[in-house]
Amino acid sequence: MSNFWSSMAKRAQPYVPGEQVNDSHILKLNTNENPYPPSPNALQAMKRSADATIRLYPSPTTDDLREVIAEQHDVNKDSVFVGNGSDEVLAFAFMAFFEPLERIRFPKITYSFYPVYATLFDIPYEEVPLQEDFTINPEDYFDAEGGVIFPNPNAPTGIFLELDAIETIAQKNPNKVVIIDEAYIDFAPESFSARLKNYNNVLLIQTLSKSRALAGLRVGYAIGHPSLINGLTRMKDSFNSYTIDRVAINAATAAIKDTSYTQEITKKIVHTRSWVTKQLQELSFDVLPSQTNFVCATHATIDAKTLYEQLKKHSILIRHFNQDPIDSYIRITIGTREEMSRFISALTEIIRSA
Amino acid sequence: MSNFWSSMAKRAQPYVPGEQVNDSHILKLNTNENPYPPSPNALQAMKRSADATIRLYPSPTTDDLREVIAEQHDVNKDSVFVGNGSDEVLAFAFMAFFEPLERIRFPKITYSFYPVYATLFDIPYEEVPLQEDFTINPEDYFDAEGGVIFPNPNAPTGIFLELDAIETIAQKNPNKVVIIDEAYIDFAPESFSARLKNYNNVLLIQTLSKSRALAGLRVGYAIGHPSLINGLTRMKDSFNSYTIDRVAINAATAAIKDTSYTQEITKKIVHTRSWVTKQLQELSFDVLPSQTNFVCATHATIDAKTLYEQLKKHSILIRHFNQDPIDSYIRITIGTREEMSRFISALTEIIRSA
Repeated sequence: MSNFWSSMAKRAQPYVPGEQVNDSHILKLNTNENPYPPSPNALQAMKRSADATIRLYPSPTTDDLREVIAEQHDVNKDSVFVGNGSDEVLAFAFMAFFEPLERIRFPKITYSFYPVYATLFDIPYEEVPLQEDFTINPEDYFDAEGGVIFPNPNAPTGIFLELDAIETIAQKNPNKVVIIDEAYIDFAPESFSARLKNYNNVLLIQTLSKSRALAGLRVGYAIGHPSLINGLTRMKDSFNSYTIDRVAINAATAAIKDTSYTQEITKKIVHTRSWVTKQLQELSFDVLPSQTNFVCATHATIDAKTLYEQLKKHSILIRHFNQDPIDSYIRITIGTREEMSRFISALTEIIRSA
Repeated sequence: MSNFWSSMAKRAQPYVPGEQVNDSHILKLNTNENPYPPSPNALQAMKRSADATIRLYPSPTTDDLREVIAEQHDVNKDSVFVGNGSDEVLAFAFMAFFEPLERIRFPKITYSFYPVYATLFDIPYEEVPLQEDFTINPEDYFDAEGGVIFPNPNAPTGIFLELDAIETIAQKNPNKVVIIDEAYIDFAPESFSARLKNYNNVLLIQTLSKSRALAGLRVGYAIGHPSLINGLTRMKDSFNSYTIDRVAINAATAAIKDTSYTQEITKKIVHTRSWVTKQLQELSFDVLPSQTNFVCATHATIDAKTLYEQLKKHSILIRHFNQDPIDSYIRITIGTREEMSRFISALTEIIRSA
């Protein structure tokens, strides 16, 4: 704590991201990255961007990229905002739509960045417990004083909330913004985007870091009513005119256009997820029903922290959250089938020798 | 104005960046970009980054890049913070070091993003008039209630403040942070960085968008006492874990290492600046003594707005600020010698036919 820090710097409680390692021997199943490379068209676009035009500022309005995203979601460009990863979009959304002195609501078990934003911007919040089966009860989010935010599917549970339930939450908060963080939506049954036109108070947030395999490039976006998008743009333009660089704009545009490639790798991951789930169940794990690119599981006898540590000894990184009631679970990113075979083998060995 | 907006979104007064155009016939002398391509090593690093590892998150701590910057400024890595362009670094600095209810000071004529940050974060500010010759009077910045920020050289005047003067400002604000925005420092006599070790309250901010010709890549950084750097890191880690993508980290590292290339193109620009200054003076302009990659000039008889509009008709973009007392000046980025010949020819024609 330094005397030079502002009250904001003093009260901040920074987020701790999953470990990033540069050792190719380590199997990284800890930050929900895609095991496949991005679309070859995205890699081509990256290479083509490596020229002298990089001396020029990028487009502050990212029009071409927003146009492509808009087409995909059947909305107009003025319903799309692009940011430096969905984390930056979330930060701008907390700034633009949530108010100090008005309590917002989000699940007690959820993306752990939400309380970080709320603390930074001095927004009071209520962490609503999940139900016993780790699902969200829509009624718990009716008439929220300051607004609502949750991921769908939720993280780290991986559980999907039906769109009808989201509609009731939106209807029961007509004067407040309801943010649906759809980071993992491409691995789930369906996005809320087709129903978005009926709600001027719902903001969807998506990312290119998961299904598009571009975590290293930092692109996320929001879709919603133009007045919400305008609110986000006001925040960006008061913070940093250009948050997406030229390479990222070009590669993201190519990746989003290549829907068949995204579908192909997503299908593989969903298939591997089924296989991993079955293997874990055979090893006496209880596995939450995931609609994401990770699974959350608890073992009948061995505690989660021990599993995390033992797997680390096998050069396999997974994630363990030290937070009740999820602290008995481990979260495992779905890699390729080969990677998951290595994971299951290591896990089998750990359980046998326990 | 939307009912869904927070008080922050309502009070925001967004920055308006210089026009970005994609037409190669237009000569862009309006946003102080470098007319030369970046270091070939940086372009190579960009190309090499276009591979499957882009599926992985970048380093949240950007250690390798910070190490290279630290070496160049003869400080430790924990004295360096890296952000998404110097604009993002500035935003985090306003958040970390300036306080609502404590009035900060900056020049009345300066980078027009400062009042935007202050308004966004509800930080009161005093705009201190420049002296008649457009220079900063150090005494005006003694005992500032909330802190001090100004660019050196200042923008859009281009005028450099001697380092002894900065030292007195730092000494007369021992309990507040003094931020020196050195965006254009490589075109000026010397950085404050060599004197930084004597001051725990001075934060220097630099960028790769100007002398390193990488505006399209979004990398800026701060150098200062580790407790100040720690304050910035707390803000970043409460906002967006990874603000610099893999390509930008790699290219920035290569660009910073290639000091001889930076010196070579900087020397050319400084040389062209002298030539342009002389040409403008011969055309009856009064030119402020610039130590940057732009010049700020006023004509004896033709007003600045007319010159801006006439040059636009010649497909040449410059910048005009509609703000007293700089509204009679135009700001012109220094391009290549060939580009500036085209500019001077067009200007000569405009003045003759006026």
